[in-house]
Amino acid sequence: MEEFHHERDKLREECGVFGIYGHPEAARLTYLGLYALQHRGQESCGIVASDGVLLRSERAMGLVSDVFDEERLNRLSGASAIGHVRYSTAGEVSIREAQPFLVACQHGQIAVCHNGNLPFASEERRALEREGAIFSSTSDTEVVLHKLARSHAASVIEAIPEVLRDTEGAFSMLFLTPAALIAIRDPRGFRPLALGRLGDAWVIASETCAFDLIDAQYVRDIEPGEMVVINDHGLRSSHPLPHRQHAFCIFEHVYFARPDSIIFGRSVNESRHKMGKRLAIEHPADADIVVPVPDSGVAAAIGYAAQSGLAYRHGLVRNHYVGRTFIEPKQSIRSFGVRVKLNPVRDLLRGRRVVLIDDSIVRGTTSKKIVRMVREAGATEVHVRISCPPTIGPCFYGVDTPNKSDLIAARMSVEEIRDFIEADSLGYLSLEGMLEACGFSPDVACVACWTGRYPTRITREAETMYEREHEPVP
Amino acid sequence: MEEFHHERDKLREECGVFGIYGHPEAARLTYLGLYALQHRGQESCGIVASDGVLLRSERAMGLVSDVFDEERLNRLSGASAIGHVRYSTAGEVSIREAQPFLVACQHGQIAVCHNGNLPFASEERRALEREGAIFSSTSDTEVVLHKLARSHAASVIEAIPEVLRDTEGAFSMLFLTPAALIAIRDPRGFRPLALGRLGDAWVIASETCAFDLIDAQYVRDIEPGEMVVINDHGLRSSHPLPHRQHAFCIFEHVYFARPDSIIFGRSVNESRHKMGKRLAIEHPADADIVVPVPDSGVAAAIGYAAQSGLAYRHGLVRNHYVGRTFIEPKQSIRSFGVRVKLNPVRDLLRGRRVVLIDDSIVRGTTSKKIVRMVREAGATEVHVRISCPPTIGPCFYGVDTPNKSDLIAARMSVEEIRDFIEADSLGYLSLEGMLEACGFSPDVACVACWTGRYPTRITREAETMYEREHEPVP
Amino acid sequence: MEEFHHERDKLREECGVFGIYGHPEAARLTYLGLYALQHRGQESCGIVASDGVLLRSERAMGLVSDVFDEERLNRLSGASAIGHVRYSTAGEVSIREAQPFLVACQHGQIAVCHNGNLPFASEERRALEREGAIFSSTSDTEVVLHKLARSHAASVIEAIPEVLRDTEGAFSMLFLTPAALIAIRDPRGFRPLALGRLGDAWVIASETCAFDLIDAQYVRDIEPGEMVVINDHGLRSSHPLPHRQHAFCIFEHVYFARPDSIIFGRSVNESRHKMGKRLAIEHPADADIVVPVPDSGVAAAIGYAAQSGLAYRHGLVRNHYVGRTFIEPKQSIRSFGVRVKLNPVRDLLRGRRVVLIDDSIVRGTTSKKIVRMVREAGATEVHVRISCPPTIGPCFYGVDTPNKSDLIAARMSVEEIRDFIEADSLGYLSLEGMLEACGFSPDVACVACWTGRYPTRITREAETMYEREHEPVP
Amino acid sequence: MEEFHHERDKLREECGVFGIYGHPEAARLTYLGLYALQHRGQESCGIVASDGVLLRSERAMGLVSDVFDEERLNRLSGASAIGHVRYSTAGEVSIREAQPFLVACQHGQIAVCHNGNLPFASEERRALEREGAIFSSTSDTEVVLHKLARSHAASVIEAIPEVLRDTEGAFSMLFLTPAALIAIRDPRGFRPLALGRLGDAWVIASETCAFDLIDAQYVRDIEPGEMVVINDHGLRSSHPLPHRQHAFCIFEHVYFARPDSIIFGRSVNESRHKMGKRLAIEHPADADIVVPVPDSGVAAAIGYAAQSGLAYRHGLVRNHYVGRTFIEPKQSIRSFGVRVKLNPVRDLLRGRRVVLIDDSIVRGTTSKKIVRMVREAGATEVHVRISCPPTIGPCFYGVDTPNKSDLIAARMSVEEIRDFIEADSLGYLSLEGMLEACGFSPDVACVACWTGRYPTRITREAETMYEREHEPVP
Ligand SMILES: Nc1ncnc2c1ncn2[C@@H]1O[C@H](COP(=O)(O)OP(=O)(O)O)[C@@H](O)[C@H]1O
Ligand SMILES: Nc1ncnc2c1ncn2[C@@H]1O[C@H](COP(=O)(O)OP(=O)(O)O)[C@@H](O)[C@H]1O
Ligand SMILES: Nc1ncnc2c1ncn2[C@@H]1O[C@H](COP(=O)(O)OP(=O)(O)O)[C@@H](O)[C@H]1O
Ligand SMILES: Nc1ncnc2c1ncn2[C@@H]1O[C@H](COP(=O)(O)OP(=O)(O)O)[C@@H](O)[C@H]1O
Ligand code: SF4
Ligand code: SF4
Ligand code: SF4
Ligand code: SF4
Ligand SMILES: [Mg+2]
Ligand SMILES: [Mg+2]
Ligand SMILES: [Mg+2]
Ligand SMILES: [Mg+2]
Repeated sequence: MEEFHHERDKLREECGVFGIYGHPEAARLTYLGLYALQHRGQESCGIVASDGVLLRSERAMGLVSDVFDEERLNRLSGASAIGHVRYSTAGEVSIREAQPFLVACQHGQIAVCHNGNLPFASEERRALEREGAIFSSTSDTEVVLHKLARSHAASVIEAIPEVLRDTEGAFSMLFLTPAALIAIRDPRGFRPLALGRLGDAWVIASETCAFDLIDAQYVRDIEPGEMVVINDHGLRSSHPLPHRQHAFCIFEHVYFARPDSIIFGRSVNESRHKMGKRLAIEHPADADIVVPVPDSGVAAAIGYAAQSGLAYRHGLVRNHYVGRTFIEPKQSIRSFGVRVKLNPVRDLLRGRRVVLIDDSIVRGTTSKKIVRMVREAGATEVHVRISCPPTIGPCFYGVDTPNKSDLIAARMSVEEIRDFIEADSLGYLSLEGMLEACGFSPDVACVACWTGRYPTRITREAETMYEREHEPVP
Repeated sequence: MEEFHHERDKLREECGVFGIYGHPEAARLTYLGLYALQHRGQESCGIVASDGVLLRSERAMGLVSDVFDEERLNRLSGASAIGHVRYSTAGEVSIREAQPFLVACQHGQIAVCHNGNLPFASEERRALEREGAIFSSTSDTEVVLHKLARSHAASVIEAIPEVLRDTEGAFSMLFLTPAALIAIRDPRGFRPLALGRLGDAWVIASETCAFDLIDAQYVRDIEPGEMVVINDHGLRSSHPLPHRQHAFCIFEHVYFARPDSIIFGRSVNESRHKMGKRLAIEHPADADIVVPVPDSGVAAAIGYAAQSGLAYRHGLVRNHYVGRTFIEPKQSIRSFGVRVKLNPVRDLLRGRRVVLIDDSIVRGTTSKKIVRMVREAGATEVHVRISCPPTIGPCFYGVDTPNKSDLIAARMSVEEIRDFIEADSLGYLSLEGMLEACGFSPDVACVACWTGRYPTRITREAETMYEREHEPVP
Repeated sequence: MEEFHHERDKLREECGVFGIYGHPEAARLTYLGLYALQHRGQESCGIVASDGVLLRSERAMGLVSDVFDEERLNRLSGASAIGHVRYSTAGEVSIREAQPFLVACQHGQIAVCHNGNLPFASEERRALEREGAIFSSTSDTEVVLHKLARSHAASVIEAIPEVLRDTEGAFSMLFLTPAALIAIRDPRGFRPLALGRLGDAWVIASETCAFDLIDAQYVRDIEPGEMVVINDHGLRSSHPLPHRQHAFCIFEHVYFARPDSIIFGRSVNESRHKMGKRLAIEHPADADIVVPVPDSGVAAAIGYAAQSGLAYRHGLVRNHYVGRTFIEPKQSIRSFGVRVKLNPVRDLLRGRRVVLIDDSIVRGTTSKKIVRMVREAGATEVHVRISCPPTIGPCFYGVDTPNKSDLIAARMSVEEIRDFIEADSLGYLSLEGMLEACGFSPDVACVACWTGRYPTRITREAETMYEREHEPVP
Repeated sequence: MEEFHHERDKLREECGVFGIYGHPEAARLTYLGLYALQHRGQESCGIVASDGVLLRSERAMGLVSDVFDEERLNRLSGASAIGHVRYSTAGEVSIREAQPFLVACQHGQIAVCHNGNLPFASEERRALEREGAIFSSTSDTEVVLHKLARSHAASVIEAIPEVLRDTEGAFSMLFLTPAALIAIRDPRGFRPLALGRLGDAWVIASETCAFDLIDAQYVRDIEPGEMVVINDHGLRSSHPLPHRQHAFCIFEHVYFARPDSIIFGRSVNESRHKMGKRLAIEHPADADIVVPVPDSGVAAAIGYAAQSGLAYRHGLVRNHYVGRTFIEPKQSIRSFGVRVKLNPVRDLLRGRRVVLIDDSIVRGTTSKKIVRMVREAGATEVHVRISCPPTIGPCFYGVDTPNKSDLIAARMSVEEIRDFIEADSLGYLSLEGMLEACGFSPDVACVACWTGRYPTRITREAETMYEREHEPVP
């Protein structure tokens, strides 16, 4: 008998970041901000705070509300702070990987936290190693720290753009020094980063839902390529990075972000609602009710129902106490993994032809279990509708994707997938439909995991490495 | 700075029970059953298992998934088990109150767990004390154990109906002895109790959602006044209690039970959906969208939207990581308590006239915060609709109600409440509407907390006691 | 690979008790008192405090310093308190057995904690069960609570002597009611109980070392057969129990008590020192050095060395970090269990003829390992001297003894034991020598576990029961 | 009311190290080795293990037996491992400082743990920072890692001597790479490092008591200036470091090491015993009994008693359950801090003239409390004897010393100290006496903290820095 780890058959955002400058309760508000961003990373969390002279760090494995208590927050004194929630990508699951990283170098103490990914970091890492660098983690973020430390710039603030100028990849990064909070976003703007105001203090977060919890006001996004320095002289913005065509991660709108967030200046809920509407147009279904796979499928399902005129019903209930590990019974229970999280409302499904709305299909195993569960609950037909196109490629920009060979759409046609998940019909939203629903022109959007066309160079090595890194740990 | 305890501005079910007989993984399946019933009690949980000779017990404060690990489950060997999740009513929050209770007496070892309340227990307790009984808890369940122990019946199985025959009140109870699992339900059937089958094993639970998780089949309800004895000779049913008019707790359908459960033989989701429809008829609103207070308002909101033709929108997001305690910031954040749980989707609410659907209003303070939050998010009008009548009296049948003076509807008219919660309009579902939506005739329903007409005698003392018990602990 | 539980090859005191009346920090001082009494019981601990109106309880498995934190102590408000540390005897290891017990009955709330044992409790328990009593634990202490509750005496204070008047056995008991602290000791005075003063407050403890830690003054012992009632009118003493010949447990002086305690009015250290001197006279050894098995053997070893003129050396080091469980290596390490606790000082032992002083031999397995370890460290001869006679019988008065068949001295002659433990010679202190060293006349001492002559009736049943209870749990 | 942290009025060894190569249970034996070395560091502990390909790390704050469980040890697969226990020096108490450090560089993965101190590390650190290095801890050990990483040597094994050749200071270091275990000791040999054998495996530890627990045989010391490389080809020794006059830390024999260890090839117990004898000659006392401050004073007190002919008595009892933190009562208890650890045996001290033997006096506050406690217990005279000379200077070689101004002997004469601690007389062992007792010639011994003459250069800056670092953290 062993513990049951909830199946992850989803792409996973790797991180969420939060920063604040100029508030006497900096660490405590960072704690709240991270709590609101918890869905972006559940493996580890950490906060570094500055009292103007010294940076102090607290990191641990686990959820924000479990890790931080009064004692720990009290150790983080000072009026500025940054924090991070994180998933592991692959390999090591360890406190050594938990951010923010805090180091000392010739420019003094620097803490950093990062949402994104630097596809060329491995190469640069080897180059730095050849020059004598030591690495305490496997993270590409550490590469940036080394380059900062090696910079002959007058200060960290000058060094940051110097170092990141030629760095390919996705980075929404926060730096904290004893005297300043610095935010920088890569020129393509893959991952979100929003700026807000709380009284006289400035706040920065991956998603605006973190502002809502602390009553801060969303001001605007940190722009792609922008660097913002906040210190006692106020906020100073610059655009030190080379201009590039924008590449906003559309998957944020499809799945990662909370529906109550504004991402890339656009309401996530609105995007999802419109995806649902488009899906109804592109893939209508001769059915009785529209049922979301909660919670991510809710907004699109409402849109689908609104557009199609079919009745919207909450036919699957999401358990409120879904946790991380679970003791499984020895005897086999059908679809046990899915059942711990979702349960069908039988009277709603019985005898009905159901349109089931979910955001995406990764491996297909979960979808198959859900379809079966819905059918066993009495549905006569199950029509699956997905609010984005088939996911065929890995992401190199800060999202944990399974091996290409595990992406069902990379191996199978839509009909084969339909057959595999045992649905009566299956419809994916088109690329155009998705983009239009989100309100982004293809020029400013990253859609690489659906098209295989990546906005940055991807070295052969990066790809190989990717495959290797995602092999099961022996 | 202190820890923030999520505000409870809700009536609270006091308990959930689960039992199983004849399965090698009895304790483990009880653990799963309790996990599915967690919403019925989050303060403590416990399991007692029998190996045919000896009963063993594990109880602790906390959530099922936190309390039980492999080691603890392994100590609970045997093929039968009962389990319990519990809220505290008042006074002591202590392991001493956690059920199942396990005692030894002349009839051998007996374990018991109870969902319900015995309004005359205090009187009987004093009588028993006069006869020399000692009480290890403040629970009325312990009174039943004492009476069993004093019975001269040949065995526990004979003693149970003897003892409960004249007991007024609500009891859906499970007993475990080394050789048998016994379930009994009071003659009015206030609280639910369902019987299911898992292969050759029998299972019993407060709600059928517990069966779903373990792939058991719902067979039927344990009937009001019925006693079921399960042992190695199979299941034996009898009706040893005096016949009474049924009094099913309608609040189970309004709020307590999970929507995916069948309660009193009727789908909870269906009841709620119809309540929403009736509400739309009784209290239409000139508005743009219908928004539930999630999750309990969802089914009724869908019904309201369906009936009214207004658009259903998911305008409030429920945080996935809502826990028990939370470190609050020192500075005041408006509606902090509500925000930790709910966040508005601004783009949906902005500029819209909103119908907000919730199940009930207890103190009114939470409703006021939600209305404010929705308005601050940009709603131009907020019309609150409640899927039951005004709650005006305490429950004496196993539900934790605040003092009568704290029930806003016991002190104020609907118009005054509307003013207090700052809504533009407020409509409560009528008693008839509610009953009709649930499909129960008034003869078989308890609606005492809405009407003040209690199905059992309520001694003056019980009422006074009630008030006293619910005074703030000094 | 499994966890290693430190071998218990010792008799074990089953409990320690502490009480205080009239101090604003009652619970906190009880915590300190229990900390000083920790050696008397390491499995569970608990405190009940009274604020004059209400008794509150905190109990848990584990060590005093691990179980109690600020939060827990703060819940125990009030100026009087009692506390308990406990070992399990046999069977169940469970929070259900942890004392103090707190119950309510016709006399109001009563808490009790007990050091001792009531050999006839099982009989009385069955009688009570026949009259309808329920038992929440397997403890004989609960029998006393039932009898109190059944008493028609005017109050708990009158009921206590009434109930205990005819109770055979060992009991040093503390009772707490909202308004009073009551201490009572059985007429033979098997187990110790001391009275002390801390400013205006009264304190009571199993050993005087508990007074030392809190700066209280030892006043006198609670006498055998004495009952002391402390309330707002002060301390009132009475002798309500029938007079009996005293039977002080001599094993307290041999092993259980801390050497810095005064037990039965006599310094434990002094007794042990004199035991060592007598041992040197009764069993001299032709050797080079005298080495104690620390810490219990230290005082006797110093006495032995002083008397014999041999050099005293600290040839075995006791690890400071001895804990409860330990992860053992898979490969066998010789005498691993003993080594985790003790390590030889090789340069002291090498080439020397060693007299090894320990307090007692129970099963003999530990002694054998120690002798081997000393020999492997280079000792040329090992002469074992034990500061009491061979232990041949179980204790029925509050000490956990292994089954008679596991007591090596019940099965083997001294020469056979010597052979078994591989010593060059073995000498036990004589009964007279031991008593004389302690300064007690045989009339006032219990020496039953060495002689088999028990001061109380021991029913056949009690003996049989004893054997059964100590069979390995299946 | 706050928690009470046991007063530290002692110099503190900063670390203990353990390594093993060639055993299938490498991590588990390292765990046991660290358990035996726990007294050398109680703040944090860690193990890094190698499976021949990959190094894995587990570190945490806390005691070895609390930190490691089956799950954690199982993650550390492989046949070689190194481990570390650690105190903090000053400043940050953080997981960031816990060793072993594990990094990756151009030479692959390297783990290191270090007992000692590098007085010039701060300078080198700044130099490295100027060259672009980043530091994740405040430890001087990290400087060595950077220099290794920068070395153009062919491998780590070549790089180690290259880097350490010119490093002034104290280092008994273990390195682990996927394929080798490397041990190196500075040319003066300040800190101990012993080599042992366990079947075919090699083991290395700070003290030989770690070998005893796992049944390994002490082979010899790693010599000052020696480097030992152990891999699949066996053990290879070399002496790559410049020759220097030896400087064995005599304080290891006075206090730090366990008495059952062999340190610098000499039994610690023997040294202490002889120190006691010398002390009796140098500072006789007209007294009745000799009493150690346990446990560190025991061996010297036995020696003192043996030499002087005075009676040895165990007049102070050390509590078995001394832990790290403790909840203090609000009311003042005299000498509370000392009492939690030590309690007087009154009957031994009463009316006696006592010679009290301790190893050293640091601040003097603890000695004062002990003298008072002994006197309150009834001693008529208290003569303090210390088994080393007055400690007048800080240690720069791996021992945590308070600020010079806090060392009582740096400010006061012996007579003034006697007066401060309220002793009737006070005698310190002479330098010659101490050295002779240990059997070391002054040429091979470090005695700097007693004489102020340091075996290495000590830059002005180092001294200043030292003072600064030990200022109270603001
Ligand atoms: N584990 C669960 N899974 C799904 N729904 C649940 C669960 N527990 C409770 N519910 C439903 O959710 C409602 C309560 O949740 P919610 O409305 O979010 O919180 P609140 O109790 O504060 O109103 C109940 O009506 C119940 O039907
Ligand atoms: N804390 C949260 N509160 C509300 N919604 C959330 C939260 N975290 C994540 N979400 C939303 O829920 C979705 C993920 O939840 P869900 O669909 O229930 O699980 P899964 O990740 O298994 O699909 C995301 O799309 C996100 O928008
Ligand atoms: N685990 C151990 N087992 C036995 N002796 C130890 C252990 N750890 C430390 N010691 C010895 O005990 C001495 C320190 O303990 P002690 O004197 O009781 O405390 P303090 O450090 O406060 O002086 C050290 O000299 C050391 O030799
Ligand atoms: N907290 C304590 N402080 C000092 N001495 C103690 C303490 N607890 C127990 N003792 C003494 O130590 C003895 C038991 O310890 P020891 O001999 O080391 O272990 P064991 O119980 O295995 O024989 C007892 O005789 C008791 O007198
Ligand atoms: S590849 Fe996909 S997941 Fe990654 S950034 Fe682009 S759109 Fe987002
Ligand atoms: S009074 Fe209300 S809550 Fe109580 S049983 Fe009746 S309907 Fe249910
Ligand atoms: S039988 Fe032995 S242990 Fe028990 S009370 Fe008598 S002397 Fe003490
Ligand atoms: S200065 Fe003192 S403590 Fe430091 S190494 Fe030298 S003798 Fe040891
Ligand atoms: Mg989802
Ligand atoms: Mg709700
Ligand atoms: Mg002992
Ligand atoms: Mg000491």
